[in-house]
Amino acid sequence: VAGLLYGVGVGPGDPELLTLRAARIIREAPVIAVPVTQADGDSYALGVVAPLITPEQRVLSLHFPMVKDTAARRAYRQAAAAAIASELDAGYDVAFLTEGDPLLHSTFIYVLEHLPAGTALEIVPGVTSIAAATAQAALPLVSGNQRLAVLPATFENVDELRGILGAFDTVVLLKFARVFDRLLDLLCELHLDRTSVVVERASHPAGRVVRDLEGLRGRPIHYLSLLIVQGGRERAGEVRA
Amino acid sequence: VAGLLYGVGVGPGDPELLTLRAARIIREAPVIAVPVTQADGDSYALGVVAPLITPEQRVLSLHFPMVKDTAARRAYRQAAAAAIASELDAGYDVAFLTEGDPLLHSTFIYVLEHLPAGTALEIVPGVTSIAAATAQAALPLVSGNQRLAVLPATFENVDELRGILGAFDTVVLLKFARVFDRLLDLLCELHLDRTSVVVERASHPAGRVVRDLEGLRGRPIHYLSLLIVQGGRERAGEVRA
Repeated sequence: VAGLLYGVGVGPGDPELLTLRAARIIREAPVIAVPVTQADGDSYALGVVAPLITPEQRVLSLHFPMVKDTAARRAYRQAAAAAIASELDAGYDVAFLTEGDPLLHSTFIYVLEHLPAGTALEIVPGVTSIAAATAQAALPLVSGNQRLAVLPATFENVDELRGILGAFDTVVLLKFARVFDRLLDLLCELHLDRTSVVVERASHPAGRVVRDLEGLRGRPIHYLSLLIVQGGRERAGEVRA
Repeated sequence: VAGLLYGVGVGPGDPELLTLRAARIIREAPVIAVPVTQADGDSYALGVVAPLITPEQRVLSLHFPMVKDTAARRAYRQAAAAAIASELDAGYDVAFLTEGDPLLHSTFIYVLEHLPAGTALEIVPGVTSIAAATAQAALPLVSGNQRLAVLPATFENVDELRGILGAFDTVVLLKFARVFDRLLDLLCELHLDRTSVVVERASHPAGRVVRDLEGLRGRPIHYLSLLIVQGGRERAGEVRA
């Protein structure tokens, strides 16, 4: 009988933010699959759960390099899915670990896309880095009738980004490190710089909450950071009125 | 010395989706505070963690009725915050339980707003019902450069809702039960009905994933449901092209 694939979210990084179910499945699965960006590199998700792993378990490192070429990326994802499928065919249950939640900006999504149809599957949701960031900053994300948007900070279309900032109460921007200075200019123009917060590496011991965004200008920002912008919709309403 | 207030997310309802930290804090806190909508009613969050609670712990039920009057609502929230503050002043740590995550559409946000300045606070993030819903449906929420929006389904401004559906890859609609039929008409008009899913009571034993939305027309829908709409941005791009 074929094995079962678990997509397991290990949460934002703090080992205590693992769910009880994730901990149980990670302890029980004969094969632990982890994504790595370098062939012989470490896995962040594996580091989070390292104390739970025993020598009897096999760790299957799956290579997901950061390559721009779509065909090459696809080939790596197919190879990863095939390696998992072959363990399942041999009757082993596999726990595929991902940071945060397995279905929100996670490598597990790419595995899912290439698995053979009919693969038996169970997904264990995890605490997201967004929840960890708001917890660290003690910042309500949204409540009542408020609207939330979560998107990568790209400047392909600045007017579109401006529109989103004005239509939502809270906007969480991802992957913004390289465009931060331009983004801060835009937030200043919209008078949203004072109601924005950067959270670097939420839940990590070296993580931090930065409320003085001007102080980050021209400085390096960790790629595991979130920029949370609040009050845009209200502000846009005032401007219109 | 004053007590510490923990805002604890207990996750979407399945007791195994509690985090290790939430379980530890709930076991250790002398006072467990829970929101109830009826004065003598049960707390859903307390039910989730009931096996962890011992007779030595005190349960503080805080009344948050569903009232439309803003002043009355505010008075209930102030009373809840005052009851918590008085436990903290007496030196007791208080764990305030909320479903899902404490900073995403949670009663804890209203408590936060009314606490005395300087209250010592630690927030324990939790698994959201959105993550539980996508896990149950095995549905990737967003990945790569995709954009996510989360908002209540109101029809105050249909054109605005239409614009959001066309600008985001995934839109999670909350509190839609009472407007479902109108919403389904809009999704059909935008050709998004086939790429939408309703998840009722995610992670609950009676929870279910409904992909045939037409089958829900005119039927009662549980208020703890999410409607996940996908492909709107791509579709809008095709229409423009």
